[in-house]
Amino acid sequence: MEYETRIERMGPEEIQERSFSIIRKELEEMGIRLNPKEEQIIVRAIHTTADFDYGKNLVFSPNAVETGIWTLKLGAVILTDTNMAKVGINKKKLEGLGGEVFCFMADQDVARIAKERGCTRAAVSMEKAAEWFGRKPEQKEQQKGRRPVIAVVGNAPTALIRLYELMEEGGFLPDLIIGAPVGFVNVVPAKELILRQEKVPYIIARGRKGGSNVAAAIVNALLTMI
Amino acid sequence: MEYETRIERMGPEEIQERSFSIIRKELEEMGIRLNPKEEQIIVRAIHTTADFDYGKNLVFSPNAVETGIWTLKLGAVILTDTNMAKVGINKKKLEGLGGEVFCFMADQDVARIAKERGCTRAAVSMEKAAEWFGRKPEQKEQQKGRRPVIAVVGNAPTALIRLYELMEEGGFLPDLIIGAPVGFVNVVPAKELILRQEKVPYIIARGRKGGSNVAAAIVNALLTMI
Repeated sequence: MEYETRIERMGPEEIQERSFSIIRKELEEMGIRLNPKEEQIIVRAIHTTADFDYGKNLVFSPNAVETGIWTLKLGAVILTDTNMAKVGINKKKLEGLGGEVFCFMADQDVARIAKERGCTRAAVSMEKAAEWFGRKPEQKEQQKGRRPVIAVVGNAPTALIRLYELMEEGGFLPDLIIGAPVGFVNVVPAKELILRQEKVPYIIARGRKGGSNVAAAIVNALLTMI
Repeated sequence: MEYETRIERMGPEEIQERSFSIIRKELEEMGIRLNPKEEQIIVRAIHTTADFDYGKNLVFSPNAVETGIWTLKLGAVILTDTNMAKVGINKKKLEGLGGEVFCFMADQDVARIAKERGCTRAAVSMEKAAEWFGRKPEQKEQQKGRRPVIAVVGNAPTALIRLYELMEEGGFLPDLIIGAPVGFVNVVPAKELILRQEKVPYIIARGRKGGSNVAAAIVNALLTMI
């Protein structure tokens, strides 16, 4: 079949390669120069959204990429506030490394407690995560046999806020935070809380933008770097 | 706990209402005037992405919104090319109306056929959809007892291209197409194919942008209008 618009017949790998090279070329044309380690993550976030703002708004703490790589290599527990991010993460790769994803948002106990206390399920799900997988500050960072924890927030700023509070209170220290909630109320200041702390390495989509697709893309980019 | 940045304590409904009013105000400031029916869908797409480009790139065929509403009211079958969109669609609301979502992307037969023929699973999943739920052109539009079909493409341009071919060949006519694949290769022309045909009503995210989150947001916006 002939199309007037040009549709190119090529395989998925070739399409991905071509897409990445288009993204890199346009970033260059925009004068955006990226740290090579971080570039792979940024290119994937743009690939997932076709939004070049991610060339400017992804903020990495020192060694965030390295932390992502070593935690995933050790079979990280990924905690997320959205089932869409859970579905979007490359489980074949993750589970091949011994990792696992948990999302407590749809759990009945989480819904009940949130209702009782008049707070969001996202906040309560972070408390449940802290109970299940919390590394207490007094524990050594590389305690033997401990599974590293990555908190992946793709939707609810309240998840990020409660996580920050738990970190401040000493109840929970994940090994890495990937913070990409999206929205217009509380999202920007929630991200700034994480950006201002120095206890836990982070990758944050600064500003209003983000989403479960972006959060999953960041995790998947780290997985491809292993 | 006091934050230097302003975090407002409010419930989820209030946050959503506030978010929608911020989006409407900023659209107005940008000089974007929207058709009131379509506005609800556009506001939700922006709410999901924080990307105001959706104020300009969502294209509706005449009666697309009405078609979305009547098909969902009749218990539509939703076919999607991505499990993330499947997860993101409000199943409680959809199933309350007798509707259902199918995604064939992870099916073994789809993977096998795609490998044999050297094409994408997305294309084969549309063929499977046509076999399962196809309304043939010779059938009457409102054939008694027929479940309406909405094709929701949030990822693969090849799904949209194969869908178009099936429509042209007379093998499959869905009642509505929601087309929001994202990407840099084949995505723009695939969407233009749908925009140029007049057989099936559509809601299309024109250009490179889209995603499973946007596709799900469009469906969810239609569901809230019922």
